Amino acid sequence: MGGIAADRLRSIIERVERLEEERKALSGDIRDIFTEAKSAGFDVKVIRQIIRLRRQEPAEVEEQETLLDIYRRALGM
Amino acid sequence: MGGIAADRLRSIIERVERLEEERKALSGDIRDIFTEAKSAGFDVKVIRQIIRLRRQEPAEVEEQETLLDIYRRALGM
Amino acid sequence: MGGIAADRLRSIIERVERLEEERKALSGDIRDIFTEAKSAGFDVKVIRQIIRLRRQEPAEVEEQETLLDIYRRALGM
Amino acid sequence: MGGIAADRLRSIIERVERLEEERKALSGDIRDIFTEAKSAGFDVKVIRQIIRLRRQEPAEVEEQETLLDIYRRALGM
Repeated sequence: MGGIAADRLRSIIERVERLEEERKALSGDIRDIFTEAKSAGFDVKVIRQIIRLRRQEPAEVEEQETLLDIYRRALGM
Repeated sequence: MGGIAADRLRSIIERVERLEEERKALSGDIRDIFTEAKSAGFDVKVIRQIIRLRRQEPAEVEEQETLLDIYRRALGM
Repeated sequence: MGGIAADRLRSIIERVERLEEERKALSGDIRDIFTEAKSAGFDVKVIRQIIRLRRQEPAEVEEQETLLDIYRRALGM
Repeated sequence: MGGIAADRLRSIIERVERLEEERKALSGDIRDIFTEAKSAGFDVKVIRQIIRLRRQEPAEVEEQETLLDIYRRALGM
């Protein structure tokens, strides 16, 4: 491999490594917030569920909750 | 839930959402670099392998490569 | 590596490969059932949620649903 | 939901649960083999690498190993 290609390869790898490092730091920050939430008496699993719900369209959430009720009743749950 | 607890819950959720947004953006940036690498003629799978190797201690990499050779020869690969 | 160790290594690898093959086939069978469910007009996401709920203790499910309601109301959702 | 649809839904869910149970058991069996391998003195990470290599075409493995060597040399690794 020529010197220019080698430099390009090195640049690609170093940029990916830097971004992966930042991404890992963010994951750590998110974990810290959940630890704080737990210490404050909140239920982390339920907070995650809230976050999932907020990502969806309200109409979609409502439709799925209606279906969930119907299926549960059909199964006697 | 009292107003103070509700504010705290909202703050926790919004901070997590912001950090998840940033993390998603970083994943997009990483994907873009791999797309660039592919366009430049590099093999993305091999670049990922290089990044994995660089994360490990050189002595550990060498030991595992020695073992890999031994196992392959034992299996006639 | 001696012949006995090589035989043992080969046996280990072949047994893992066989089990992974079976596991992959089961994943395919599960996917097929969800395809069948979709064709029959069921919502696959909601069925997955039902299966998750059935894995938990009923008391735990109820507690989390109560909390979810409280959190949603606190957030005005 | 009518009785026939409810029966169908129940059948779908119970079949998925059975297959997921079997899949979980297989994962446990695979874990047991790796525990056995470790006790016998083998390196589990290297065995996993061997299994990955055996899944690929030999020509593909060779090509990637050649590229890996080229990239490593270009990076002075």
